[in-house]
Amino acid sequence: MDNTIEGRNPVLEALRSGRPINKILLIKNVGRHGTVAEILYLAQQNGVLLEYVERQVIDRLGQSGANQGIIALTAAKEYIGLDELLAIPAEKGQAAFFIILDGLEDPHNLGAIIRTADAAGAHGVIIRERRAVGLTSVVEKASAGALEYVPVARVTNISQTIETLKKNNVWVIGIDQAGQADYTKIDYKPATAFVIGAEGQGLSDLVRKNCDFLAAIPMHGHITSLNASVAAAVVMYEVIKQRT
Amino acid sequence: MDNTIEGRNPVLEALRSGRPINKILLIKNVGRHGTVAEILYLAQQNGVLLEYVERQVIDRLGQSGANQGIIALTAAKEYIGLDELLAIPAEKGQAAFFIILDGLEDPHNLGAIIRTADAAGAHGVIIRERRAVGLTSVVEKASAGALEYVPVARVTNISQTIETLKKNNVWVIGIDQAGQADYTKIDYKPATAFVIGAEGQGLSDLVRKNCDFLAAIPMHGHITSLNASVAAAVVMYEVIKQRT
Repeated sequence: MDNTIEGRNPVLEALRSGRPINKILLIKNVGRHGTVAEILYLAQQNGVLLEYVERQVIDRLGQSGANQGIIALTAAKEYIGLDELLAIPAEKGQAAFFIILDGLEDPHNLGAIIRTADAAGAHGVIIRERRAVGLTSVVEKASAGALEYVPVARVTNISQTIETLKKNNVWVIGIDQAGQADYTKIDYKPATAFVIGAEGQGLSDLVRKNCDFLAAIPMHGHITSLNASVAAAVVMYEVIKQRT
Repeated sequence: MDNTIEGRNPVLEALRSGRPINKILLIKNVGRHGTVAEILYLAQQNGVLLEYVERQVIDRLGQSGANQGIIALTAAKEYIGLDELLAIPAEKGQAAFFIILDGLEDPHNLGAIIRTADAAGAHGVIIRERRAVGLTSVVEKASAGALEYVPVARVTNISQTIETLKKNNVWVIGIDQAGQADYTKIDYKPATAFVIGAEGQGLSDLVRKNCDFLAAIPMHGHITSLNASVAAAVVMYEVIKQRT
């Protein structure tokens, strides 16, 4: 389950303190003045998703009975820092194996990727803070329990994160249909992170430019892209195949 | 969009005529007598899914304004026969490449598998008629348009279908954690169909017994199975890799 923060002032304080929030739910006639105006402003500034819903939805989620028509949903699991994530493969004496998600929006996809990351023995997943789905209860459910085992770092800037990874000798591969190389021709035995783009949009230009390499998954039919969780799985299992 | 059949007698007639129905929606207080009783009985006999919903749901789906609290949803696309499916690789002069789904229930998974089947250049997908999701509008949407291009056969009995495939010199591989072989060690160059089990249940015993071979996808983490659409994708891309 998500944790909830309920009521106008608590939600405002949570936003001010920079506490990770997945989404803010508001009833449709909550208004746009005073505290609400400030909440809307800060949510926008911080790229927090807003969703207007029926009162019943909020009342069902709320546990305090004093939600004033506003509830913030916080992460179902704590994020870890990028430095902590980088330490994991080192501790295990293994070559790093990370999955970077550049703005995934569908919680089912994120959950499925976390589930596959566990199965593939990846060291962790890196997600974007703004305009992307966080670790909600839907993600937890879609992960079939894997969220408990897979470390997730949430970063403000994917491009900067790629730079940091490169400085730490992690090879960064963008999975992109514009890639010249077939994804099976890449050597995944050294420390590797691969980047999967948002549904329907692929990698952002800056991210594409910052990758060491772009690799494509061959498409033999009429559709031009795979589902994001499918693309991630296909690459993860190629990594496994090369490493075992 | 699904096509709809609305009202008690039209739905009853559709069931009697054996017209493919994905699901029947009923309002909660529709009762259990007369025509409704017969609908419930025939639906059960034919393994048609029933779902009780609020009146608004039915009224929104209905186009006739005379649904009497019952709507049947029919396939978003016509199914083809198994014989037609078997003819496709022969026509193309290619070794057969089919995906058999043994009771998949989640329309998002079915849609994602059809999308990947298109990308992988598979010749078609075989689904089960009873207690399994059919080609609904959710499947169509999740397929990202691929449903238009990927032939789907719906069969009454997966085990018998496996026998038919084997008689037609198609090698049938069950993807199952009990498999002795790693899925990458199988030779997929000859005519091949692989079987993916239902979410959370895997292959049924009879299907498992009828396969030529069982192959496992390695699991390196804590979770014991992959999402069905992910498992299908991982195998499909291994087939592609071996064939190109």
